[in-house]
Amino acid sequence: MAKMKPRTLSGFMELLPAPQAQMERIMEVLRETYSLYGFTALDTPAIEDAQVLLAKGGGETEKQIYRFQKGDSDLALRFDLTVPLAKYVALYYGELSFPFRRYQIGKVYRGERAQKGRFREFYQADIDIIGDGSLSMLNEAEIPAIIYRAFHTLGLERFQIRVNNRKILSGFYEMLNLSDQATEIMRTVDKLDKIGADMVRDILVDDLCILPEKAEKILRFIAVRGSNQEVLNALEEFRGENQKFDQGLDELIAVTKNLAAFGVPETHFAVDLTIARGLDYYTGTVYETTMLDHPEVGSICSGGRYDNLAEYYTDKSLPGVGISIGLTRLFYVLNECHMLSDQAITAPADVLVIPMTEDLTPAIALATQLRDQGIRTQIYAEQKKTKAKLSYCDRLGIPYALLLGEDEIREDKVTLKTLATGQQVTVPLAEAMRTMKLAIWEARQGVVIQDTGKKD
Amino acid sequence: MAKMKPRTLSGFMELLPAPQAQMERIMEVLRETYSLYGFTALDTPAIEDAQVLLAKGGGETEKQIYRFQKGDSDLALRFDLTVPLAKYVALYYGELSFPFRRYQIGKVYRGERAQKGRFREFYQADIDIIGDGSLSMLNEAEIPAIIYRAFHTLGLERFQIRVNNRKILSGFYEMLNLSDQATEIMRTVDKLDKIGADMVRDILVDDLCILPEKAEKILRFIAVRGSNQEVLNALEEFRGENQKFDQGLDELIAVTKNLAAFGVPETHFAVDLTIARGLDYYTGTVYETTMLDHPEVGSICSGGRYDNLAEYYTDKSLPGVGISIGLTRLFYVLNECHMLSDQAITAPADVLVIPMTEDLTPAIALATQLRDQGIRTQIYAEQKKTKAKLSYCDRLGIPYALLLGEDEIREDKVTLKTLATGQQVTVPLAEAMRTMKLAIWEARQGVVIQDTGKKD
Repeated sequence: MAKMKPRTLSGFMELLPAPQAQMERIMEVLRETYSLYGFTALDTPAIEDAQVLLAKGGGETEKQIYRFQKGDSDLALRFDLTVPLAKYVALYYGELSFPFRRYQIGKVYRGERAQKGRFREFYQADIDIIGDGSLSMLNEAEIPAIIYRAFHTLGLERFQIRVNNRKILSGFYEMLNLSDQATEIMRTVDKLDKIGADMVRDILVDDLCILPEKAEKILRFIAVRGSNQEVLNALEEFRGENQKFDQGLDELIAVTKNLAAFGVPETHFAVDLTIARGLDYYTGTVYETTMLDHPEVGSICSGGRYDNLAEYYTDKSLPGVGISIGLTRLFYVLNECHMLSDQAITAPADVLVIPMTEDLTPAIALATQLRDQGIRTQIYAEQKKTKAKLSYCDRLGIPYALLLGEDEIREDKVTLKTLATGQQVTVPLAEAMRTMKLAIWEARQGVVIQDTGKKD
Repeated sequence: MAKMKPRTLSGFMELLPAPQAQMERIMEVLRETYSLYGFTALDTPAIEDAQVLLAKGGGETEKQIYRFQKGDSDLALRFDLTVPLAKYVALYYGELSFPFRRYQIGKVYRGERAQKGRFREFYQADIDIIGDGSLSMLNEAEIPAIIYRAFHTLGLERFQIRVNNRKILSGFYEMLNLSDQATEIMRTVDKLDKIGADMVRDILVDDLCILPEKAEKILRFIAVRGSNQEVLNALEEFRGENQKFDQGLDELIAVTKNLAAFGVPETHFAVDLTIARGLDYYTGTVYETTMLDHPEVGSICSGGRYDNLAEYYTDKSLPGVGISIGLTRLFYVLNECHMLSDQAITAPADVLVIPMTEDLTPAIALATQLRDQGIRTQIYAEQKKTKAKLSYCDRLGIPYALLLGEDEIREDKVTLKTLATGQQVTVPLAEAMRTMKLAIWEARQGVVIQDTGKKD
C-alpha cells in the first residue's frame, strides 16, 4: 500500500512524552494555584459563530483568524479566551454569581506567519474576576499575587511583575493638554534608552511641536525610577493637577500596599511607568511579567483592569480584571533556555514490574497491590531478555524495577532494582514499597522549572 | 452601541460553573487512573493537514469532517484521537520506547446533524498500548481493568464491560465456509431477541440459502449465554474445527483469567458473543461497556485489539490495543439520569473570607495563611451588606465563611460560620482551620457520580 508521509503542521506544538509530562505538570500547578484563590474552571467551545466572535471587529487579529463555512454556518476558531468569556458572561448573566472568578486553560488559534517560537495553535491560561456594576480594587492586587504563587510553585524565581496604572498615563497627558498626541509622545519616549534624553527632547519640541516646559515635564515624568516607594514618592510631585492622575496614583498606592500584604516580595514586583499595554480596553492597573535573565523574551504574563468586559453583547456594566499566560510560548522559551527539569517528573511510571515466570498471575497481583497504594506501575510482559526490559525502564526514566521470579514468589519477596545505582535487593514487598514511597514523595517535591538564575 | 446577541453554537457543550467542576473532577480522576497504569499524557493539534488526517479515506466520517482552507493549506479538525495517534507514532517512531502507553483526553469534531445528546465538539478520553512488531496479550486484560478502576473511582457502580474476540466470530464463519455472508448473518442474528429463533432460522435458510445443519449450528452458537465460565465451556464444543476460532478462544480464556487477577469482579465483566464492533481494524479482543440501568444509552466505552495502528503512514508493524470513553456524551447522559453528585465538589472555594474592617490588610493576611495551608480561599471585598455576602457564599455552595472584624482582630480570633447549619463560633484561627481541614478531607472522599442503582 502507498504510504502517506506523516507530518504535523508547522506552527503547531506537538511534544514528545517527556516534555509533554513537563507541560502537564505546569498545567496542573496552574489549575491548583488558580483553585486556591477560589477560581472556578471554565471550558468554552473552540469553534464559535464568526459573527459573535468578531462582534468587536478586528484589525490585525481578524486577518489571522481561522474562519470557515460548514453547511450554512459561518464559523471561526477562537483567537483568545477573553471574547468567549465575554460571550459566556453575557449569555449566562442571570445564572452566575458576581464577582465571577474563572480560570480557563485552553487552546486558541491565530494563523500568523510561521516563525521560530511563534505558534498558530497555543494554550492560554487565563484568570479573570468580573464584577456586576462594580468591582473592588482589592482584586487588582490579588491577580499578581496569584501569578507570583503560580510561578514560584513552578520553580521560576528570576521574574518580576511590573505594574502601572493607565489612569496615571492618561491623566498625565490630560494635565499637559496633550491627550491627542499621547500615542506619538509615548512612542518617542519609548526610545529614551536608545537615543538619550536630549534627542527625545528635540523630537518632542521640534517634530511634535510641544512647548519646551511641557517637554521638560515629560522628561521628568519618564525619568521616574527606583524602588517602588521611590517611584510612588516621585509621582506625588505631580499630584493635584489632574483628577484622573490622582485617582490612578491612589490606586497604584493601594495595589502596592496590598501586594505586600498578599506576601509578594518587593523583589518580584516593580512599579514601572513604561508599562502601557496596547489594547484600548484596559482602564486601570496594567501588568506585564518579565524573566529577569531573559528580557529578550518580552512579557510572559500580561493583563489589567477593564471597565466593560462584554459591551458588544450587553448593556450590563461588567468591570473586571484579568491576566493571561501564553503557555505554549512560555514552554517553548523555558525549553530553549534549558530551564525545564529533567527529574523523575517525566517518567510515565514509578516502577516497572518485570515478571520472570510464565504464569503472569503473581505479577498482575503485585501490580494491583502497588496501584492500590497509589504507586504508578507498569507491567512489562513482552518476550524480551531481562537486559532489554531494564533498558526500556532506563530509557523511560522509571526509577525502579521489581523483578518477580519463582524464587521471589516462593519466599514471598520481591527483587527491587534501583536503576540510578544499579543496586538490587531481595526484600519483602512492604519494604520495597516503603523505599519507593519515600522516593516518590521526594520526587514530587521537585519543581518543573529549574531557575538557577544569573551568576553574580 | 448596537449589541450582538451572544450565543453558543448548537451541538457544542458549554457548562455552567457547577457542572463544569463535575466535568473537571471526572477528567482529573481519568488522568490519575491512567497514570497509575503507567500511561504517559499526549497532546496533539486539533488541526491537521487534511491529506494526512484522511489518509485512510473515509466513508461516513468524511462527510462530517470540518475541513477548510487557510492560505494554501488544506486543513481539517481531528474527528477522533486514533488517527492523530497513528500519525504521531509513525512520525516519532525512532524517539519512542515500545510498548508505548499513552492517554489522551481531548476535543474532537464531527459536523453531525444536531440532535439531543449528540455533539459536534466532544471530548474523547483514550488509552492505547502500542507494540513494536508484537504486543503481549496481557495488555488486552489490563485495558478493561483500567476502565473498571476509573469508573469505580468516579462512583459508577452499575456498569458491565462486555468482552468478545473477533477471531472467534470470523473463525466460526470460516468453519462453516460462510465468511462471505458473515455480515448478513450477523445482521440477521442480531434480531434474535425481537423475532425469535424460528424466524431467524427461516431467514437464514430461505433468504440467505444456508444449509439447515449450518443454520442449526449458528443458532446453537448465538444461544451461548450464562456466566463467563459457562460461555467459555460452551465454546469448547466448537474447538478443533478452525485454527482462528481456537486461537480466539484461547485469547478469550487468557483475558478472562487475567482480568480476575487484575481485581475486576465477575459482576462487572461479561463474555458476550454479540459484541462485534463495526470497525474493520479490530482483530482480536473487543470491548463495549454498558450502564446496567440504562441500556438505552448504548456503549459508553469501547475499543479493542488491532494489528496495524499506522499502516497508512508506515511499513512498520504496530499492533495495539485501546479503548475510548466518549466523555461529553457520558457526561450528558449522567446529567440526564441525575447521577451527578451535587456535593461540595462543585464549590469554587472552601471558605469565603469576609472582611468587616475598612483596612483589608488583616483579611488579606488571613487569606494568605489559609492558602498556604492548601485551603481554597476567596476574599469577598465588594461593598455589600453582610447578608448579601453570606448569600453569595451560599449560592456558590462554599461551606464556610470567616468573618474578620475589629473584635476578632483584637482578640486574635476569627468568626467561623458554617453555612449548612448557620452555626457561628468565634475561635482562634488554628481551631477554625482544623474544622475546615477535616470537612475538606471528608468532601474529597466524595465521588462525582452517585450511582444508587436499580431498586430490587
